[in-house]
Amino acid sequence: MGTALIVLAAGRGTRMNSDLPKVLHEIGQSPLLHHAMAAGLALEPERMVVVAGHGAEAVETAARAFDETAATVRQETQEGTGHAVQQARPALETFSGDAVVLYGDTPFIRPETLETMLAARARADLVVLGFEAADPGRYGRLVTEGDRLDRIVEFKDADEATRAIRLCNSGVIAADAETLFGLLDRVTNDNAAGEYYLTDIVGLAREAGLSAEVVRCEEAETLGINTRAELAAAEAAFQTRRRAEAMEDGVTLLAPETVTFARDTVIGRDTVIEPNVVFGPGVTIESGAKIRAFSHLEGCHVSRGATVGPFARLRPGAELAEEVHVGNFVEIKNAQVGTGAKVNHLTYLGDADIGAGTNIGAGTITCNYDGVFKHRTTIGRDAFIGSNTMLVAPVTLGDGTMTATGTVVTHNVPAGDMAVGRARQTNKPGFAARFFEKLRAAKAAKSKGD
Amino acid sequence: MGTALIVLAAGRGTRMNSDLPKVLHEIGQSPLLHHAMAAGLALEPERMVVVAGHGAEAVETAARAFDETAATVRQETQEGTGHAVQQARPALETFSGDAVVLYGDTPFIRPETLETMLAARARADLVVLGFEAADPGRYGRLVTEGDRLDRIVEFKDADEATRAIRLCNSGVIAADAETLFGLLDRVTNDNAAGEYYLTDIVGLAREAGLSAEVVRCEEAETLGINTRAELAAAEAAFQTRRRAEAMEDGVTLLAPETVTFARDTVIGRDTVIEPNVVFGPGVTIESGAKIRAFSHLEGCHVSRGATVGPFARLRPGAELAEEVHVGNFVEIKNAQVGTGAKVNHLTYLGDADIGAGTNIGAGTITCNYDGVFKHRTTIGRDAFIGSNTMLVAPVTLGDGTMTATGTVVTHNVPAGDMAVGRARQTNKPGFAARFFEKLRAAKAAKSKGD
Amino acid sequence: MGTALIVLAAGRGTRMNSDLPKVLHEIGQSPLLHHAMAAGLALEPERMVVVAGHGAEAVETAARAFDETAATVRQETQEGTGHAVQQARPALETFSGDAVVLYGDTPFIRPETLETMLAARARADLVVLGFEAADPGRYGRLVTEGDRLDRIVEFKDADEATRAIRLCNSGVIAADAETLFGLLDRVTNDNAAGEYYLTDIVGLAREAGLSAEVVRCEEAETLGINTRAELAAAEAAFQTRRRAEAMEDGVTLLAPETVTFARDTVIGRDTVIEPNVVFGPGVTIESGAKIRAFSHLEGCHVSRGATVGPFARLRPGAELAEEVHVGNFVEIKNAQVGTGAKVNHLTYLGDADIGAGTNIGAGTITCNYDGVFKHRTTIGRDAFIGSNTMLVAPVTLGDGTMTATGTVVTHNVPAGDMAVGRARQTNKPGFAARFFEKLRAAKAAKSKGD
Repeated sequence: MGTALIVLAAGRGTRMNSDLPKVLHEIGQSPLLHHAMAAGLALEPERMVVVAGHGAEAVETAARAFDETAATVRQETQEGTGHAVQQARPALETFSGDAVVLYGDTPFIRPETLETMLAARARADLVVLGFEAADPGRYGRLVTEGDRLDRIVEFKDADEATRAIRLCNSGVIAADAETLFGLLDRVTNDNAAGEYYLTDIVGLAREAGLSAEVVRCEEAETLGINTRAELAAAEAAFQTRRRAEAMEDGVTLLAPETVTFARDTVIGRDTVIEPNVVFGPGVTIESGAKIRAFSHLEGCHVSRGATVGPFARLRPGAELAEEVHVGNFVEIKNAQVGTGAKVNHLTYLGDADIGAGTNIGAGTITCNYDGVFKHRTTIGRDAFIGSNTMLVAPVTLGDGTMTATGTVVTHNVPAGDMAVGRARQTNKPGFAARFFEKLRAAKAAKSKGD
Repeated sequence: MGTALIVLAAGRGTRMNSDLPKVLHEIGQSPLLHHAMAAGLALEPERMVVVAGHGAEAVETAARAFDETAATVRQETQEGTGHAVQQARPALETFSGDAVVLYGDTPFIRPETLETMLAARARADLVVLGFEAADPGRYGRLVTEGDRLDRIVEFKDADEATRAIRLCNSGVIAADAETLFGLLDRVTNDNAAGEYYLTDIVGLAREAGLSAEVVRCEEAETLGINTRAELAAAEAAFQTRRRAEAMEDGVTLLAPETVTFARDTVIGRDTVIEPNVVFGPGVTIESGAKIRAFSHLEGCHVSRGATVGPFARLRPGAELAEEVHVGNFVEIKNAQVGTGAKVNHLTYLGDADIGAGTNIGAGTITCNYDGVFKHRTTIGRDAFIGSNTMLVAPVTLGDGTMTATGTVVTHNVPAGDMAVGRARQTNKPGFAARFFEKLRAAKAAKSKGD
Repeated sequence: MGTALIVLAAGRGTRMNSDLPKVLHEIGQSPLLHHAMAAGLALEPERMVVVAGHGAEAVETAARAFDETAATVRQETQEGTGHAVQQARPALETFSGDAVVLYGDTPFIRPETLETMLAARARADLVVLGFEAADPGRYGRLVTEGDRLDRIVEFKDADEATRAIRLCNSGVIAADAETLFGLLDRVTNDNAAGEYYLTDIVGLAREAGLSAEVVRCEEAETLGINTRAELAAAEAAFQTRRRAEAMEDGVTLLAPETVTFARDTVIGRDTVIEPNVVFGPGVTIESGAKIRAFSHLEGCHVSRGATVGPFARLRPGAELAEEVHVGNFVEIKNAQVGTGAKVNHLTYLGDADIGAGTNIGAGTITCNYDGVFKHRTTIGRDAFIGSNTMLVAPVTLGDGTMTATGTVVTHNVPAGDMAVGRARQTNKPGFAARFFEKLRAAKAAKSKGD
């Protein structure tokens, strides 16, 4: 039987002080929502339902951007977690199996924890995720016998003995979908807030003679985000973990605390990452590459033995083959760069294919945009593009071609040819001397006038 | 009645190991002196007197740079804080009202604290600012009954019971100016250091039957800077506070610990600041903008919805209208960039006006400097500046103009026209093939010769 | 009598998870091995012997790169530290004097500590370096009476009383070379690991009636590196120390925690280092210079009063004279830049000599590479190089020369002359208006087609 995930993502997040829905704030440059969905996807669920509310349109777009098969439903009024889960019901009408309720603002749940919860379903009708809180504060307490969950007691309803319990409720619940919705039908909003609480189903289940079990995880996994300060702390925790993982995997980080990872950054063994490097989403780097200081990469691939930076920017679609050199003040976007090619200085390559062994001179620019459309530049193998060459796309330069420094290349260059297009240099004797003399006089006159 | 501020800024700061006067060392890219003056200015004082001594000329220039109405006086010999305050007397001859003594190397005093001191003047002739020290060490101790200040006891004169007091003297004092200077006349330099101590006026006041009160503040407010290590710690404390304030104000800081603020940085709600961004003085950013990684901004304004960076530098006078895009390796100085204009790559815009909707191609440079004077470049709306266009100022390009890639624009371009100035490309058949052949031969010959 | 250093550098470092031999991993951008060798070199040793094993070729190359007089020997099989030291014997056949055994993965030993050990040799046949461990864990314990070393007890052989000792063995040993090798001859591999342990010589020495003494150092000095996480922690400790030293020396670090030092970085007093600066090996900066944010320097010299950055890269061989200005997106390699010269924007200077007072316009590029060889560009004093000038090396421009914006300089320019080489600008009336019209139509057609 399959699994369905229900991700609650309707909250406003007032304390974020933001127009952006809370679950779209980012850690590791991915929305909180994606982190939660990623943890759930590891279960290979049959269905994924995201419950949107505040900023629903943006949340739904983000949900589908991460998983295009995800269903989205709306909670139009904010009537509590139980009410939110109920909104997922129509989307799961044809589904039978286990449902797991996750939270879009709780990004650190580990897939292994969710798997443990599903496994526990073999022994219990309801499985609740709990954690030993360092400071239990106002969390709901889990009253248990061993792993058996007796009931959840809200802090305000707890007597002193119950408050002394440190095992707290994370809110994450797994149950057979039919059981889950059946219990939810019986939850009332007969409380101070007038809301339907998901956690109420535990008491109802026990009354109905169903069994419940608690699965425990580290408190850090259940961390929810409510303020920007908490978000920053979560980001810092995320980065610390990713840096440690990278080092364990054999990545050389010269100054790990200055390297910013994205959620999905992949880096091979013995690749060297110098200080002050930022990885945006979608970066993969093979083994034995080198990313030098002050580099910014997103949506790109760097192959074995390639060197990038310092001060390089690889944008989405940049693909560097083995032993490529990309140097300083270079931007590469949507371009394949062939084995051993060099792009060392002050260059923009956009929408281009560069052949193996080709050398791109300093100041080269692919003029890929005509104001409306983007066009492609193709350069063959072992070409030598002179400094300050303008490549007006669409244009193709064959294998072993050259361009003279300062040439604007507007039509194709056959293999072995050189493209030239520049004015001849002439020297104007004494012109500079006279010019400087005049300038100095003008300056003196101006100073006098001041 | 008005208020006069007396800011003591004469010290040498020997332990800074610097030729720069201590009060000109910076926190948040403003001299310590400006921080102290800024706290004082919040009281809207009638007079501001800065007492300079070591490096007086530089200190006086800095004082006037911050507040051109500030008076500056010199303490020619370093004879103690009492002597320093006495130097301010001539500058306040025509003043009557309260005087507050501040310190140029104590940057964290809050305006609210100074307001509380002035309010306390209604109840006492002398108001002294004290703080509960975590480690009172060798600070002078404040002997009090409630808020009434009985006396200040220097550490070396204190008995064990007095040394047990943790309420310490910050040195900040408020009093009627006439009272202050009257008491100072009676201070002697009859002590080991042979100096006139400002704090001696408290004892003299009490002897004369005047009342004194203590106002308390956090120890952090009274932090004085004596070494570069203390300066660095103060800078770190300043940055931590500014980052937290920004997050509370709804600014999105992806990695707050990597963002460097200046004293006067202003950022709107939901603006995103990526990692590794440095703000110099004079930056204002509206809501909903985005400053990408590795950007450096000073003296500039970024409007709603604009995007800057990564690797962008905005220098003083850069003003970006709404929805402007400034990309990588771009420098903008003293230039207005109109709504929705794009300056995406490898460009220098200096002394320029760029119209709304205009696209500036990669490699564009405003040639604004002729070796002596700077000149202005003006471009209209919806223009399309081709890559590698050189704009030799002074020059004006009208609305809807174009420039061909690689053109050096030396004279104006009327609206709707295109400026072209480049050599035609010609291909030299087989030239590159022969050239490479020759080079390879030369290389082989050289290898042999080695 | 001279001193010989034996540096053990044969270990595999399995826990580093790397193909690179452990001692070649870096701190402060120098291999661990170089740190150990540098500490030893301060003793001005007569001989330096590096014992390589795992990755021997690379280790030997690195050893000689640091000290070309260093001898290297190989430990072909890993049979323990005693066995490793034995490999150094043939290289020291003609040597007599003291030998000091150091470790290539222990980078923080201070020269002063080694000097103290050699001094202690006057009183004892064997000198062992010990440290008080915060957590002695499984270190060997030093059983002593005062400074006299009685014996070293391995943790597994220690009784409870001995385990309570916190003075631990660092492994660093000094002894007369003949004594050392004599004792090593008697060390057996009769232990669980089947290895020859260097530390066994202490017991053998005592049995033979020789005296042994312990010299104590801080635990931090003896820190050995076994994992990448330990390497990162060591790097952080190194940076913290270097930053503190720089501040004590009077360097102004605006945000010390964002500045990355190399082992050999030298910076003068009152030089200002802004946030986010990376120093590679071989950088010297005089007093009163300024290195602005996001700058990357290696193998270069910056003179008094010069300003670099933000976003500047100085590569090996860059030498800036006094008052030089290097601005943003500028790369300088193997080039002398004369007093007061300015290189302010978007420029590549490679293999060049720039005279005093010369101004290099934005977008200037030295075209120093023809695909095989590098050539030199020479520019005289007080020249004015227009924006986007291409300098096709080898080429020489005399004093007081100018180049017109956009000129490709392919032959020399005599002093006082101006080089011009560009197409004249012509305006094509209405062309842009018609072009945009056509584009918009094409776009509309395309949208329709989609």
